[in-house]
Amino acid sequence: MCTQTLSRRAALFGGAAAVASVAVATPAAASGRRGLLDLTYPLGPAFPAFSPGEEAALRTVATIADDGYYMQEWTTVEHIGTHVDAPVHFTAGGRTAPELRPDELIRPAVVVDIARRARHDADTVVTVDDLRAYERRYGRIPDGAAVLMYSGWGAKAGDPNAYRGTDAQGTLHFPGFGLDACEWLLRHRRIRSLGVDTLSIDPGVSESFETHLALTGADRYGVENLANLDRLPPSGATVFVGLIPYEEGSGGQARVIAMR
Amino acid sequence: MCTQTLSRRAALFGGAAAVASVAVATPAAASGRRGLLDLTYPLGPAFPAFSPGEEAALRTVATIADDGYYMQEWTTVEHIGTHVDAPVHFTAGGRTAPELRPDELIRPAVVVDIARRARHDADTVVTVDDLRAYERRYGRIPDGAAVLMYSGWGAKAGDPNAYRGTDAQGTLHFPGFGLDACEWLLRHRRIRSLGVDTLSIDPGVSESFETHLALTGADRYGVENLANLDRLPPSGATVFVGLIPYEEGSGGQARVIAMR
Ligand SMILES: [Zn+2]
Ligand SMILES: [Zn+2]
Repeated sequence: MCTQTLSRRAALFGGAAAVASVAVATPAAASGRRGLLDLTYPLGPAFPAFSPGEEAALRTVATIADDGYYMQEWTTVEHIGTHVDAPVHFTAGGRTAPELRPDELIRPAVVVDIARRARHDADTVVTVDDLRAYERRYGRIPDGAAVLMYSGWGAKAGDPNAYRGTDAQGTLHFPGFGLDACEWLLRHRRIRSLGVDTLSIDPGVSESFETHLALTGADRYGVENLANLDRLPPSGATVFVGLIPYEEGSGGQARVIAMR
Repeated sequence: MCTQTLSRRAALFGGAAAVASVAVATPAAASGRRGLLDLTYPLGPAFPAFSPGEEAALRTVATIADDGYYMQEWTTVEHIGTHVDAPVHFTAGGRTAPELRPDELIRPAVVVDIARRARHDADTVVTVDDLRAYERRYGRIPDGAAVLMYSGWGAKAGDPNAYRGTDAQGTLHFPGFGLDACEWLLRHRRIRSLGVDTLSIDPGVSESFETHLALTGADRYGVENLANLDRLPPSGATVFVGLIPYEEGSGGQARVIAMR
């Protein structure tokens, strides 16, 4: 019964591949929780930028009192707030934001929880062992999934220095995906995307951005600064990534909503 | 069978109200077309602004050759491209973009086609008669729906002056929703939103923006510059409005995708 329900849900979003893959009943999926969950941070000038100085800026350009209507103007880099990294962000000739298709933006979601380890080690990464442990507990990661890291980092989002984890030398410290885990997911689970509740899919200490390079080199995309991943089940949800199709965009702001 | 399929789909998105309302089988819904349809225009500096001079602007701030990664920065008013008008856009004290809930952004869609009339009359509006004719043919407009006007105006989106319909006196000419139709939908069908394939939910000739005032005054939102509405069935689809939650936003860019 649950399996049937899930495969119907998958059919609406992902076509045949997702049907086959999401139709694995898991403890979380079987819990029957239903509803919509917003994975997006409100975008404002206080939201932490990867590089200080790149925060979103705004000005009010019309008011109801003076103009009869109210409107703001925003200046934003494509990588501030909850946003997508398109393949072209790190891979020359890669696809731009408008080239990511709707069927790539609506995917079965998998949440890998490393929050316990991250509490004591800001440089920890998702490993192949984490993925194997996930699958033993929750079942196989579906082909074409969005694999999301939950590290608990959202608790720091109100404090840019804590969220960046900047040390005395200026090095950043926050969790991400390890290269091995990224390559394993690409090769063996044919994932569609990686998502994180931190500023970058590579850990903060990375200087080589090797996970970005592997992911975008495989024509896949990333999602950064996801909110509320603690409220998403480990499997069984579907995630909608409402990416703004900026022309020639290296990525861009996205409204990300999960359907549990 | 079709009715069952629709009510399952509705259950995923809209909860009880949508189940009740979308579970009306219609000719279009019964056609069995399935899949995702992008209703969003790519956002770039050539996209027509309601007021010339308010086009989106961009600059490249990093390149792979110089920086190892590629990134653009955008300056955009909240009302350029495919976007949402939040209640606060025209109603003082109304809700802002982040205050629109996920369940308001995923809704059963109804498409009212006035393209034939619009070919000969750029100032035409959706009327109560149009809505009654729609219901005779396709069934009752569900409570909580997104009611979308298709006028064929997208064919002009490549030419800002044609899309605005600017005449020698500088007056704009394009179709929209009439006040009577908006009030009827609010009162008798408790709609959630109005959407248009033009620059404004009010027709271009409007000086009073009375449809904006009625809609936002009722705490409902609008969606402007929708693409591809000719490819959406008159009923039976679900529309996802991926609004960027700009802080204090009067609305903002949105990725809008329909599930047929
Ligand atoms: Zn990024
Ligand atoms: Zn607007």
